[in-house]
Amino acid sequence: MPEARIPWNWPARLDVLELTFSMSEYGRRLESYRAVAAAHECDALVLYGSPADDAPTRHLTGFSTWWGQSFAVLNGSGPPVLCTSAIAHGEPMHSNAQTTWVHDLRPAAGEQAGPASDGLLKQVAEALPTRGRIGFADVRAIPVSSFNCLAELRPGVTWVDCSDAVRRIRRIKSAEELALLRRLGVAVSAALMESLHTVSTSATELDVAAAAHAGCVRRGAEAMDFGCFALSGFRSMFKNAWPTDRRPRDGEVVVVDLGATIGGYRSDVSRNCFVGDPSAEARRAIDACVEARDAALAAIRPGVRGQDVVDAMSTVLAGRGMTAWDFSLCHGIGMHLIEAPYFNERSTVLESGMVFCVEPIVAPPDVGMLCIEDMVAVTESGYELLTPAPVMPVISTHTSPAGSTYEGE
Amino acid sequence: MPEARIPWNWPARLDVLELTFSMSEYGRRLESYRAVAAAHECDALVLYGSPADDAPTRHLTGFSTWWGQSFAVLNGSGPPVLCTSAIAHGEPMHSNAQTTWVHDLRPAAGEQAGPASDGLLKQVAEALPTRGRIGFADVRAIPVSSFNCLAELRPGVTWVDCSDAVRRIRRIKSAEELALLRRLGVAVSAALMESLHTVSTSATELDVAAAAHAGCVRRGAEAMDFGCFALSGFRSMFKNAWPTDRRPRDGEVVVVDLGATIGGYRSDVSRNCFVGDPSAEARRAIDACVEARDAALAAIRPGVRGQDVVDAMSTVLAGRGMTAWDFSLCHGIGMHLIEAPYFNERSTVLESGMVFCVEPIVAPPDVGMLCIEDMVAVTESGYELLTPAPVMPVISTHTSPAGSTYEGE
Repeated sequence: MPEARIPWNWPARLDVLELTFSMSEYGRRLESYRAVAAAHECDALVLYGSPADDAPTRHLTGFSTWWGQSFAVLNGSGPPVLCTSAIAHGEPMHSNAQTTWVHDLRPAAGEQAGPASDGLLKQVAEALPTRGRIGFADVRAIPVSSFNCLAELRPGVTWVDCSDAVRRIRRIKSAEELALLRRLGVAVSAALMESLHTVSTSATELDVAAAAHAGCVRRGAEAMDFGCFALSGFRSMFKNAWPTDRRPRDGEVVVVDLGATIGGYRSDVSRNCFVGDPSAEARRAIDACVEARDAALAAIRPGVRGQDVVDAMSTVLAGRGMTAWDFSLCHGIGMHLIEAPYFNERSTVLESGMVFCVEPIVAPPDVGMLCIEDMVAVTESGYELLTPAPVMPVISTHTSPAGSTYEGE
Repeated sequence: MPEARIPWNWPARLDVLELTFSMSEYGRRLESYRAVAAAHECDALVLYGSPADDAPTRHLTGFSTWWGQSFAVLNGSGPPVLCTSAIAHGEPMHSNAQTTWVHDLRPAAGEQAGPASDGLLKQVAEALPTRGRIGFADVRAIPVSSFNCLAELRPGVTWVDCSDAVRRIRRIKSAEELALLRRLGVAVSAALMESLHTVSTSATELDVAAAAHAGCVRRGAEAMDFGCFALSGFRSMFKNAWPTDRRPRDGEVVVVDLGATIGGYRSDVSRNCFVGDPSAEARRAIDACVEARDAALAAIRPGVRGQDVVDAMSTVLAGRGMTAWDFSLCHGIGMHLIEAPYFNERSTVLESGMVFCVEPIVAPPDVGMLCIEDMVAVTESGYELLTPAPVMPVISTHTSPAGSTYEGE
C-alpha cells in the first residue's frame, strides 16, 4: 500500500469522525457480538460485509462498504479490528474512514479489480487466532473464494457458522435506532407525498421518481437504496420495476414505492395516485386496501404472531371478494430491506422494538396495483407508525379535457 | 411456490417485454458465453448474480437481480435457463420478469429471509449436467454456502473457474452498449451541471445532491447506483462520502461526483464549484487538473498502455509541483463501477470499444479536493468523450455579503 497522503490514524480521525450513533450504542452492540461468540464457544468472530449486504460489518463498526469488501474481527475480549478493501485511491480518507469508531482499521488498497484480494484475506487471518473455534457470519454472503482462502490461511481452526445468531442481534431496535428510523420515516413520507402531487398526464414516471429522489435526499437521505418505483397504468402490475418515460392516462393508477437510506437504515413506503376520477372498481379496491391496513395495525402488539398481522389483511380482503388479487405481506426492515422479524416463519412472535413494513396490496387487473406500505415499530402497548403519510390516494386533477385523446404510449 | 396470479410464461411476457437491448445483441452475447465454456472444455456454464454484482447474469439475460440471487445456466448448446430468488411476493411479474428474453425462467419464491435457498440451488442443479466439467463465474462473488450446496447436489462434476474469461467478455463495448453509455453520459453531465448551479452558502450538501438525483432520474436514470457525493470544504477531502446538512462557506470548494444507472450501466462523473472567488492556490490547482485531463485525453488511442494515460496526468501535475497531492487515476466502467480495462494491471493495452473514466484529482490541503472525472470510449483513432460537461469550475455568486459571518461549525 502506498503511504497515505491524508492522515487517517486514530488521532487524525478523531478530528473528523462522522458516526451515525453514540459510542455507548456501539459499545452495547460490541457486547452483543461478544455474547454470540461466547454462546457458540468461539475464540473469535468474523463478520463479513459487502455492497450486497454491508450490515454485518456496518452495524458493529459504523463503516459503510459501498464497494469492495470488509471483515470485522473480534478476537477474544480485545478491541475489534476492521480489515477492508473498500479503500478508494489507496486512501482510507477517500473511503469513509471517518465513519468508524474502530481504532484498529487495516485498509487493503489497490483493489480496483473487484471484491477479492489475497492481501486483504491475509490481513484478516493475521487478526485471527491460529487455532480454536472461529465463528463467522454471514455465511450466506461470504464469497466461496474468500472463505476458502481464509480456511487455507488458518488450517488449524474450526469454523462455526454464527449467521443466524448474528442476524438476530439486529431484530430488536434500540432507542437510537428507533430515533433514526423515525427521522427516516418522516423524510420519506413527505417526499412520497411530494412526488404523488407531481403526477399528471404530462409527467412521466421518471418525472415522478425524480421528485421522490429529490425529496428524500433534500431531507437527509444519504442514498436511495433501491430508489423509486413510480409505475403507471398496466406497469403498476410489475410492482418492483424502475420508472420509464411512460405517462399515465386519464383514469389510470400510479403507485410510488420509495427506498431511501439514512445511516445505512432502509425505508420502504408506498402510496397511490389516481389520474382523474377513479372507477367504481378502483374505489372499492382502495377502500379495501385502507381497511386491510387498519386491521393489520390494530393487530400489532407484543406477543401476537407475525402471521396474525398478515391474516388480518387477508381476512378483510377476502370479505371484499379480493382473495384472488391479494398480495399483502409484512416484512421486517432495518439495515436490510428484508430482515427479522421474518413473516414467512410461522414461529415469529412480535416483540417491543421490532420494526417492520405493513404492506396491503390489491391488484384487480382492470385497476392495476394498489399498495399502502407503512413502516411500524412494535411498542409495549401496540405500535408506532413511523411513516405519517395520508393513506387515501392523491387524485391528480392535471388531466386532459374530457373526450380528448392521447397519442401512442 | 404458490400459483402465479399474474401470468409470466413466455407468451404472456412477450406482450410486456422491456428489454434494454435488441435480441440480436443478446444473441451475440450468448455466443460469447458459449465460446468461454468451449474454451474451458466445459459442458455447462453457471453465471451468478446478486445485488452486489448482478452484471454476470444481467449481461446475458437482461434480468436485474436487485435483491435475492440469480443463476444463469448454459447447458451444452441448449437455450439458457434463468433460476432466480429475486421474486417478490412469489410473483415473477413483481420482480422484473418482463426484463428478460430468456424463455426458461425458473423463479424460486418464498425467499424473504435472505439470499440463499436450497430450493433455488436445487433448481440450478437440475438445469446442470450430472457429470463432466461445469464452468462457473463469478467465483469472487458466489457465496460459500451456495457453492458448497451446488457441489453437494452435483458430486460427479468438476468445477472450473471461468471468472476471468467471463469478465473479459464485457471489456469491449458493442455499438448498442456505446449508444446507451452515450445517452447516460449526456444525462448525467446535464444533471451534474444543474446541481453545481444550486451551490450557495445557503444550500446544504444534501440540497446539491437532491438536484443531482432529480436531474439524473428525470433524464432517464432508473436508479442512482452510489448516488451523489456532494462534498464541501474540508469534507471534499473525503472524496467518496455521502452528503450532509453542511453548507459551504465563502471561498470553499464543492465537488460533486455522480453515479447513476441506465439499463444496469453505471456512470461516474465529477466536476467542481467554488463558492465566491477561488484563492490563487485553488486556481493553480484547478488549472493543473484541467491540464492533466487534457494530457490524458490526448494520450488515448488503441495500442497505448493504460498506464500511459495515467502517467500523462502525473507528469503534468509533477510539473506543477503537485505530486504530493496527486490522486489521479483511470478505471474501466460499464455494468460495474470498476471493471476492465483495469489500470492497475501493467499489461493493459487500450483497444477500440473500451470505456473508462479519466479522473485527474488534486487535493492541496488548503484548497480541498478538486476532481474532473469523465467517461470516455476508445475509438479507432483516439477517444470519444461521453460526458460533455464544461470542465472549468462553476463559480457560485450566491455568497454572503463581504464581511458577514456565519454561525455554527
